[in-house]
Amino acid sequence: MSASPPAVVLLSGGLDSATCLLVARSEGFAVHALSFDYGQRHRIELERARALANRYGPAAHRVLPLDLPDRGSALTDPSAEIPKDALGREPIPSTYVPARNTLFLAHALAWAEPLGARDIFLGANALDYSGYPDCRPEFLEAFEKMANLATKAGIEGKSAFRIRAPLLRLTKKEIVLLAQTLGLDFSLTSSCYDPKPGGRPCDRCDSCLLRARGFREAGVSDPLDLR
Amino acid sequence: MSASPPAVVLLSGGLDSATCLLVARSEGFAVHALSFDYGQRHRIELERARALANRYGPAAHRVLPLDLPDRGSALTDPSAEIPKDALGREPIPSTYVPARNTLFLAHALAWAEPLGARDIFLGANALDYSGYPDCRPEFLEAFEKMANLATKAGIEGKSAFRIRAPLLRLTKKEIVLLAQTLGLDFSLTSSCYDPKPGGRPCDRCDSCLLRARGFREAGVSDPLDLR
Repeated sequence: MSASPPAVVLLSGGLDSATCLLVARSEGFAVHALSFDYGQRHRIELERARALANRYGPAAHRVLPLDLPDRGSALTDPSAEIPKDALGREPIPSTYVPARNTLFLAHALAWAEPLGARDIFLGANALDYSGYPDCRPEFLEAFEKMANLATKAGIEGKSAFRIRAPLLRLTKKEIVLLAQTLGLDFSLTSSCYDPKPGGRPCDRCDSCLLRARGFREAGVSDPLDLR
Repeated sequence: MSASPPAVVLLSGGLDSATCLLVARSEGFAVHALSFDYGQRHRIELERARALANRYGPAAHRVLPLDLPDRGSALTDPSAEIPKDALGREPIPSTYVPARNTLFLAHALAWAEPLGARDIFLGANALDYSGYPDCRPEFLEAFEKMANLATKAGIEGKSAFRIRAPLLRLTKKEIVLLAQTLGLDFSLTSSCYDPKPGGRPCDRCDSCLLRARGFREAGVSDPLDLR
C-alpha cells in the first residue's frame, strides 16, 4: 500500500479552480490547496476557497497574504471600475493583475519542493477566458521549464515538476459538465469580480458572463442564480 | 531632458546585491529596491538593506514579507545547523531555499510592470557561489522568457523585460574591485548566514568564506573584519 502522492493545487474559490481540485483528487493525489489574499476586491472568493477546502478535505489548505502594488489592476484598486458587459472588448482587460499566475505558481513551487510534491495544478483556461497572458499554454510551458531549472529537485530529477492545467483547452461548457461529473457543489464557488453586498454576483463582469454562458450551454442551472 | 527610467533591484543587504544596486545607479536608472523578510535567520541583512537604501537613496525601497514553508531550508529553520568550513562539499548545500529567486523575481516583475520598469537587476553570481540552481544563467534566461510570456508588457512589447545580472560571470575578487570602483561602503553590507550576537560574521559559513576569498584576492581589506 502506498500513500497518496502530494500535489499542490491553486484554489481561488472560483468554478475553474474548484473543478481542478476535484480533478487532482480524482487522480489520487493528496491535495495541498493554496489560496492568496492579494487585496482582491472580490474577497468572497477567499470564503469560498475555505468552504471548498472544508467540503473536499484536502490534506492541507494555506491562505497566503500577497503584497501587490496598489494600482496594478482594477481587481485590486478600489477606485477603478470593473468593466461591465464588455466581454472581449479589450484584448487584455483592466482586471489583468500583473504577474499574478507567476506569483501564485512561484509560491506553489516553494511549497511543493520540500513537501515532495511534483505536480502543481491550476485551473487556467485558454478558451473561454478574459485574455490574460498568464493563462496561455505558452506561459505555462515556460514556467514549467523555468521551475525545473530553478530547483534542486528539478535539476536532480530532470524536469521533475509538472505544471498541470487540466482545464486549459476545455470550453466553459465542458468545465461545467466535468465539474458536475466529479460532483462539485457549485453553490460553494464564486466567480464574480464585483459582487454585490451579501456576495450576490453582478451578472455583468467578464467572469459572470463566461460562467453564465458555460452553464447555459451545458444545460445546467447555476445555484448562484437562485440566491 | 528625460527622467531616469525606473528599474527594480533585488537588494538583500549582501555584498553582491549592494554592488548590483550601484551598477544600476551608474547606468542612470531610478532604482526601486526590493527586499524580503522570508524568515531568514540572518535577519541583520534586512537592517543592512535599509542602511544601504538610506545611503544610496533609491527612488523607493520596499521590504515585503514572504511566507515560506518552515523547514524548507537551513536558512529558515532555526533547528537546523548552518554548514561550517564546508564550502563546495555539497553540490547544493542545505542553505538552499526552494524557489527563492523565482519568488523574488516574480515579486519584482509584479512591481515592475505597473511602474513602467523593464529592467530587473539581481546580484546572482555563478562563479564564486554556493551552487544554488537559481543563480545559474540558464535559470535567469528561462525566467526572462517566462516573464515576457506572462505579462501584458511582455507580449505587447515583445521581450520587454530584461533580467539583468551584471555580476553573473564575475569572480568574487572582481565583484569586490567593481564595488570599490563604484564607491560602495562595504561596512554597510552583511554576507554571513549565521551571524553572532551583535551581527559579527561567523567567518566559517559558505558566504563568509566566499567573501573573505574575494577581499583577499582583491587585496582590499574588509571593514567587517575590524569590528
